[in-house]
Amino acid sequence: MSSKKYAAEAIGTFWLTFAGCGSAVIAAGIPDIGIGLLGVSLAFGLSVVTMAYAIGHISGCHLNPAVTVGLAAGGRFPGNQVVPYIVAQVVGAVLGAAVLYLIASGAPGFDLAKGFASNGYGDHSPAKYSLFAGFLVEVVMTMIFLFIIMGATHGKAPAGFAPLAIGLGLCLIHLVSIPVTNTSVNPARSTGPALFVGGWAIQQLWLFWVAPLIGGALGGIVYRWLSDEPHGEVTGTTSSK
Amino acid sequence: MSSKKYAAEAIGTFWLTFAGCGSAVIAAGIPDIGIGLLGVSLAFGLSVVTMAYAIGHISGCHLNPAVTVGLAAGGRFPGNQVVPYIVAQVVGAVLGAAVLYLIASGAPGFDLAKGFASNGYGDHSPAKYSLFAGFLVEVVMTMIFLFIIMGATHGKAPAGFAPLAIGLGLCLIHLVSIPVTNTSVNPARSTGPALFVGGWAIQQLWLFWVAPLIGGALGGIVYRWLSDEPHGEVTGTTSSK
Amino acid sequence: MSSKKYAAEAIGTFWLTFAGCGSAVIAAGIPDIGIGLLGVSLAFGLSVVTMAYAIGHISGCHLNPAVTVGLAAGGRFPGNQVVPYIVAQVVGAVLGAAVLYLIASGAPGFDLAKGFASNGYGDHSPAKYSLFAGFLVEVVMTMIFLFIIMGATHGKAPAGFAPLAIGLGLCLIHLVSIPVTNTSVNPARSTGPALFVGGWAIQQLWLFWVAPLIGGALGGIVYRWLSDEPHGEVTGTTSSK
Amino acid sequence: MSSKKYAAEAIGTFWLTFAGCGSAVIAAGIPDIGIGLLGVSLAFGLSVVTMAYAIGHISGCHLNPAVTVGLAAGGRFPGNQVVPYIVAQVVGAVLGAAVLYLIASGAPGFDLAKGFASNGYGDHSPAKYSLFAGFLVEVVMTMIFLFIIMGATHGKAPAGFAPLAIGLGLCLIHLVSIPVTNTSVNPARSTGPALFVGGWAIQQLWLFWVAPLIGGALGGIVYRWLSDEPHGEVTGTTSSK
Repeated sequence: MSSKKYAAEAIGTFWLTFAGCGSAVIAAGIPDIGIGLLGVSLAFGLSVVTMAYAIGHISGCHLNPAVTVGLAAGGRFPGNQVVPYIVAQVVGAVLGAAVLYLIASGAPGFDLAKGFASNGYGDHSPAKYSLFAGFLVEVVMTMIFLFIIMGATHGKAPAGFAPLAIGLGLCLIHLVSIPVTNTSVNPARSTGPALFVGGWAIQQLWLFWVAPLIGGALGGIVYRWLSDEPHGEVTGTTSSK
Repeated sequence: MSSKKYAAEAIGTFWLTFAGCGSAVIAAGIPDIGIGLLGVSLAFGLSVVTMAYAIGHISGCHLNPAVTVGLAAGGRFPGNQVVPYIVAQVVGAVLGAAVLYLIASGAPGFDLAKGFASNGYGDHSPAKYSLFAGFLVEVVMTMIFLFIIMGATHGKAPAGFAPLAIGLGLCLIHLVSIPVTNTSVNPARSTGPALFVGGWAIQQLWLFWVAPLIGGALGGIVYRWLSDEPHGEVTGTTSSK
Repeated sequence: MSSKKYAAEAIGTFWLTFAGCGSAVIAAGIPDIGIGLLGVSLAFGLSVVTMAYAIGHISGCHLNPAVTVGLAAGGRFPGNQVVPYIVAQVVGAVLGAAVLYLIASGAPGFDLAKGFASNGYGDHSPAKYSLFAGFLVEVVMTMIFLFIIMGATHGKAPAGFAPLAIGLGLCLIHLVSIPVTNTSVNPARSTGPALFVGGWAIQQLWLFWVAPLIGGALGGIVYRWLSDEPHGEVTGTTSSK
Repeated sequence: MSSKKYAAEAIGTFWLTFAGCGSAVIAAGIPDIGIGLLGVSLAFGLSVVTMAYAIGHISGCHLNPAVTVGLAAGGRFPGNQVVPYIVAQVVGAVLGAAVLYLIASGAPGFDLAKGFASNGYGDHSPAKYSLFAGFLVEVVMTMIFLFIIMGATHGKAPAGFAPLAIGLGLCLIHLVSIPVTNTSVNPARSTGPALFVGGWAIQQLWLFWVAPLIGGALGGIVYRWLSDEPHGEVTGTTSSK
């Protein structure tokens, strides 16, 4: 089973990127009946809910380098697995963006210059939020996201509900922050579309690696302190179930 | 109980088709306060959530030929039950479309030419997506749908949550792909309205059988590989609970 | 505890009527940011989800004469409790409408002539659906509602999820049928606002007793047949948990 | 662990205020694709769902002085813990409003005079509801909120579902009452933004302490009567899990 957890992470991150960004590119802006930012928020959230039930028992269903780093910082994930997990997530996200491109470009009027769901700040923030605001929102959101993940997968939390809590947490994060940065909290999800858009999307990509990784690590550390979990412990078990 | 599982599949697929397509025909386009594509997505998803809790213990609650074929391909459903399940599903879907027709035609301005929630591509795609885009989105969406179904009903997944994961997965699929094909991933659901609309809806119906069945089989096979389930095993138990 | 189940039914039906109808009267039509029919559907659904977890263990949380009659027809509720349950539900619904009136009338522009969330058909259907369409949709929707309730509370269904399945079922029913009749499937909920609106709302109230009660009884009977439950059995236990 | 429950309450109330009010300030009013009142309602609800799974086992996850007072009135929370819990909640809410201010002020056109999600009545009610209507809706909503909390955490309710029931209850409360008072039912959440807006928001703040605390206490008392729980019992265990 060992190598298959990487395949699971890649497929899961494919789904998060394809369906989350796809809802934004394909369905959000249809006049009058489009799903809007509420629908996009729900799409990102449900991509995690569905995959966490499907592959949580295989790989822990991180689907996100900031989650992997945060769980390692929180003492829940072995450090030597961090890089291979992140590689699998980025591969999945790029494939998700590629398939989305194949489908979305089949409509009249499709144009990568509309953003293709890339994340951005300043002039490329959906509502023109500053770099500072974008950095802060990504740090805070990812910190609380990891806090929720650590808490909902804690041994004292009700069993089986973590995928709902975590996925609905990602939904909530999007409900607030899409206008600020288009919402990343996930460097892999940001990398996929940016490779297709190029230019500004690549130039601004650094923030969507740095801020979520900082926030994720903080969230893992804060929760470990709060719950009095042993410091320095490294378990080999995955935890998003 | 043996024959009653077919009745359960027919009633369940009646509900999926009647309520899912009904939300689109009756409530999506009301000016200003209509439920839009977000509401239609939720309707299809909740039709599966509700029926999976109600009849999952009777028939497994497939409600979809692509699910039945995918579960068979994944080694979870006996091959000799595939055809009778599909017959029951199509009968239910046609009855669902018929009752919807009786109700929807009771409003001034009702017109089958508006589409009656039929699936289509090219000129009959809601946002004019190409045949290629439609075929691809139906294959990919059904593949991941079966992947989620196989995973959420796996013995290691949390018990009792599969109906939520599967129904919310169908909701997510609709959140993305309604503008492309009006979203099928379910040949029975496509057949019901097409029989009433006729013409182009019948001519394009082939895609909504071929693509979902291919995608469903792929999803079942991929998940079986991923989870190291024994190959060639055929169990008689249903699995959508 | 005996008499307190009636108080629980009254409080629960108060909540369903106050919050469900309140969402429609107060929040649905706010320009640009109003919750629309999707929000109203969610409100009715969540009123049942919340109360079913809160009082399911006290009264079974029917909150609806059609549910009480349907469960009796399905062999799950004792016949001699039907009338007192219905009385408690109607009392709760009238109180819910009364408190809603006190609050809603505190806004400039409030006018009972806008309908106060009453149910109607023909000229009083939100989208002018005929009497036939209204009758049919109420019968079919209540039938499937009871089918879901019977199934989700069956001993073989996953424990604890019935409140979600049932509440989300009521949400789905509203997603489809608000434009037809403003959605009743619940004679108590219909009676509350009608008493305040008077006139046409009272004259049309008969349909929202007759159709849901017929549908509810049919749903209970069909599910009992489907699940091979012993005929004629009457248990004293409540079942909506 | 003793002192860490206060940290948990502060972080949780930070999240409720930051994400709930943040969804309103940042995302609700975006033209055409904004999340509207439905999205804001979902945001407040999900802030409780996520935190209740994350910290329910640490502090009980009250996040709200009215909940703490109501649980004490209902015999579920020790009286000598009421004040420190409320202090922690108010600290968290003020920090949540502060971080929201830092982010939201990074957009062109940000203006505290738009309300910053403060609660109000009369001229400061979103739809100009009267003081009487505002007071009544806050009392009734908080009363039923506590009723749901007491019921869903009762020993006879299904285990593990209380965070969903309670969070979705808060969502439903917002679906109805945002136009009346912008919805408080939570004095801490009201205090955070009011400190930044000043003026009228501070002058009207009294109502959003008095009415929720009255309603919360009533809800706790009514449920205790309904469920025949022993009077005068004080347990040290938290209960929102």
